[in-house]
Amino acid sequence: MSITGEMLIGRQAVRGNEKPLRAFNPARGSDIAEPVFGSGTVANVHEACELAAKAFDPYRQLPLATRAEFLERIADGITALGDGLIQRAHEESGLPKARLEGERGRTTGQLKLFAEVVRTGQWLAATLDSPLPERKPLPRSDLRMQKIPLGPVAVFGASNFPLAFSVAGGDTAAALAAGCPVVVKAHRAHLGTSEMVGRVIQRVAQAMDLPEGVFSMIVGAGSSVGEALVAHPAIKAVGFTGSRAGGTSLMRVAAARHEPIPVYAEMSSINPVFLLPGALAARAEAIARGFVDSLVLGAGQFCTNPGLAIAVDGDALNDFVAAASAALAARPAQTMLTAGIHAAYEDGEGKLAGTQGVEAVAHGAAPTGPTQARAALFVTDARTFLSTPALEDEVFGPASTIVRCKNEQELLEVAEHFAGQLTATLQMSGDDLPAARKLVPVLERKAGRILINGFPTGVEVSHAMVHGGPFPATSDSRVTSVGTTSIERFLRPVCYQDFPADLLPEALADSNPLELWRRVDGEITRS
Amino acid sequence: MSITGEMLIGRQAVRGNEKPLRAFNPARGSDIAEPVFGSGTVANVHEACELAAKAFDPYRQLPLATRAEFLERIADGITALGDGLIQRAHEESGLPKARLEGERGRTTGQLKLFAEVVRTGQWLAATLDSPLPERKPLPRSDLRMQKIPLGPVAVFGASNFPLAFSVAGGDTAAALAAGCPVVVKAHRAHLGTSEMVGRVIQRVAQAMDLPEGVFSMIVGAGSSVGEALVAHPAIKAVGFTGSRAGGTSLMRVAAARHEPIPVYAEMSSINPVFLLPGALAARAEAIARGFVDSLVLGAGQFCTNPGLAIAVDGDALNDFVAAASAALAARPAQTMLTAGIHAAYEDGEGKLAGTQGVEAVAHGAAPTGPTQARAALFVTDARTFLSTPALEDEVFGPASTIVRCKNEQELLEVAEHFAGQLTATLQMSGDDLPAARKLVPVLERKAGRILINGFPTGVEVSHAMVHGGPFPATSDSRVTSVGTTSIERFLRPVCYQDFPADLLPEALADSNPLELWRRVDGEITRS
Repeated sequence: MSITGEMLIGRQAVRGNEKPLRAFNPARGSDIAEPVFGSGTVANVHEACELAAKAFDPYRQLPLATRAEFLERIADGITALGDGLIQRAHEESGLPKARLEGERGRTTGQLKLFAEVVRTGQWLAATLDSPLPERKPLPRSDLRMQKIPLGPVAVFGASNFPLAFSVAGGDTAAALAAGCPVVVKAHRAHLGTSEMVGRVIQRVAQAMDLPEGVFSMIVGAGSSVGEALVAHPAIKAVGFTGSRAGGTSLMRVAAARHEPIPVYAEMSSINPVFLLPGALAARAEAIARGFVDSLVLGAGQFCTNPGLAIAVDGDALNDFVAAASAALAARPAQTMLTAGIHAAYEDGEGKLAGTQGVEAVAHGAAPTGPTQARAALFVTDARTFLSTPALEDEVFGPASTIVRCKNEQELLEVAEHFAGQLTATLQMSGDDLPAARKLVPVLERKAGRILINGFPTGVEVSHAMVHGGPFPATSDSRVTSVGTTSIERFLRPVCYQDFPADLLPEALADSNPLELWRRVDGEITRS
Repeated sequence: MSITGEMLIGRQAVRGNEKPLRAFNPARGSDIAEPVFGSGTVANVHEACELAAKAFDPYRQLPLATRAEFLERIADGITALGDGLIQRAHEESGLPKARLEGERGRTTGQLKLFAEVVRTGQWLAATLDSPLPERKPLPRSDLRMQKIPLGPVAVFGASNFPLAFSVAGGDTAAALAAGCPVVVKAHRAHLGTSEMVGRVIQRVAQAMDLPEGVFSMIVGAGSSVGEALVAHPAIKAVGFTGSRAGGTSLMRVAAARHEPIPVYAEMSSINPVFLLPGALAARAEAIARGFVDSLVLGAGQFCTNPGLAIAVDGDALNDFVAAASAALAARPAQTMLTAGIHAAYEDGEGKLAGTQGVEAVAHGAAPTGPTQARAALFVTDARTFLSTPALEDEVFGPASTIVRCKNEQELLEVAEHFAGQLTATLQMSGDDLPAARKLVPVLERKAGRILINGFPTGVEVSHAMVHGGPFPATSDSRVTSVGTTSIERFLRPVCYQDFPADLLPEALADSNPLELWRRVDGEITRS
């Protein structure tokens, strides 16, 4: 597939007339000369949004099987792009090809899983309350409820997942599955990859004769295109993965609209790992190796990167620090996604190193390329951590800080101190059960996912996954942005009162033609 | 029970030292002399919020049966207040005693229904994904998910339901059921009623030895107490029923917090009723009687009051207008809830009467008391309606406008023009099915509940009810504020990865001890 640098607006390819942009190769530290991408105007945004609004009713009214087929054919189309897609994503992101192949599998698997989800229809949450015509003092009407899609969704892809959290990533898959048209703002860090995937979606939509506007993709140089997208009245929800500054900025735009809309921003997390005494005593070295593996994976560029380890001071913690330091020293520097991310990492790591009471104990190998990150491990004590708010800031990249606590009480104090997180992890043994019982209720309040004896990187796409958590991990702790229940972000309930059979939605018909598990008079039943 | 004018903060009764307030009897148009209510300071708010924060973990960890018993004993305590409560609510609200007795039944029924809901545990949304240790390239962890409560909730009661949407109303019942402590700001319009009900909750909490802070009730004179409550870091969600100005003001406070929190504000709706030609031809007079009954019920002081009827012009519509006018003329004026609501109604009705292109066609009987509302019916045409934004503003009280459309196309244009509504209603016959098929998809986008051949007043508390809808009907169309699923407003999901059996929440144990319907590897099962 050739990349032209055009935007995709409905069925058209449109060259943006605003500032020209070039893709960037972070491994080489230089622009990719061809093609030039034309960034869009606010008028382009409006056109895409108006097409999305027109597409909404016809798209959501298609049979569920058609919606499922749409998702599956997008997945097949992405696979059919073959090595060209992997090569382009590799050039634009600096990520290893093997990692990108894995990410492609995750992306297509996610689309196919959502196709299954659409077909089952459980997300419709079909609920029926029988009429009670004889009830006194007042009869009860026939009441039936299902969920319907919110409306067109704006999706902002992530820098760190050019496939799985981008143009056809989790937000787009969930929104299309819910019945919402999608307008994507392509991420500056992988413009060519975005166009390739976007053209797949556009072609499938056209081949299936879906309503024009079910998908568009806009390119923007600054923040004005993204803000115009969030501000457009046709847009009814926003999916975003990125920085806290970017996410909170979109939250402000959404809250200031005439009609405020939900923003699902996945933003910032340092993913504390608690190393309990029994676990450290039994296997400090093994935990250290696992911790370092998790820390440097993908140059530390994961939302779930373990930015903090917390333990009670002592010999076993010293063993952990020594083993982690040794493991880290052997790790090569890795190319980061963009020059900006690399600069921010160097800045964040430098600030950690310069913080009073924080000591650098280990570094990975020195960089050999222009945007490479050297891994770093720091140590501090709980009093310093508790009194230095900056130590809670995410440093996006392979840097982590170990917090030495005097005792269990201080460790609990550190846990209670955290703001919201995507994950929290306990390394524990059977001996640590009493301490874990005290920690888990605190961590439930703080994090969307709690892991025992694992490491937080690696987010399964399944039914029980929660990739979310209290602010600032996300803007909305009530939902997840990964896994099948992420579809719920784009739905709202509607009640149908005393509807004749001829007008009832299929999901709510007496005969249950979709064979759904429904709640009927409070009981779960499939009959 | 004697009313002292004190606030209820944890286990204490505390006299507020800010501006003294007196309750008001709208039927007499005068203050109720005794007692004087002391309004609270921001320090009182902070005390209540800090107690709520402390109560959160112990309260949510109580057995579900204890939580259910709490709700049931509150219901019994309210019933035990007997006629004293009804008398006080009648004096403070001007609402007829029979209506208040019905509302009391709804309130206690709601508490008992939520007790049932708590016991079933379905709201935990228990979900299990089995580990796949042999999966290639990577094994899958053991992943389990349940919902937990958000944290302390601030509840702002409604003026128009001194029992069912107030201190122990739907928001409080749902929040306590979810496991959230509650801090109520008592509504200025029924301070004594609020104290009576609040003392019941406080006494039950103490009798059951529940954590202090599970419930508090604050009195405030202006907006500072309410805003301090929403701004307090311990508060994690807000329930509000009231005006659009009040709701959007709390939304702004919540969005401006360091940690933004969800606000569930139920605000403003004009609840359009579409009178389709077949229905009007068959039964214009019967529909007119039903419409007027719904319009004047409770002096029109319902969120679901039908503020608008829309029909295609012609003889049948003339019949409807004539019959509705005749029915309305026979209706007595009714006492409104407060002097302020009465003044706002007079103002809104006056503005309607003075709007170019709007004609007053009928009035109810003239007032005989100081805060009585005279019902009013207006007629306009679709072009005027579409070009006069003020005609979409809610006039809280027994006033409604009939919109004459030239044809079905114009009627659809009016439907498409609306902002979000709690309800939309179709009066139709079999002949109207084709028109209804065009209208329903539009109304699904606009309203939380769609009724066929009914009237919107009267909101059932059941599983399938949706009392919600797009902005400005509510601040969050993804949820309902009435019915059992309103508990979902106060929950968030947490994923437990690779938890040992000893640490797993009961809802997620292999043996399913709570006998929940759970999603296991994608299948709904109770085993």
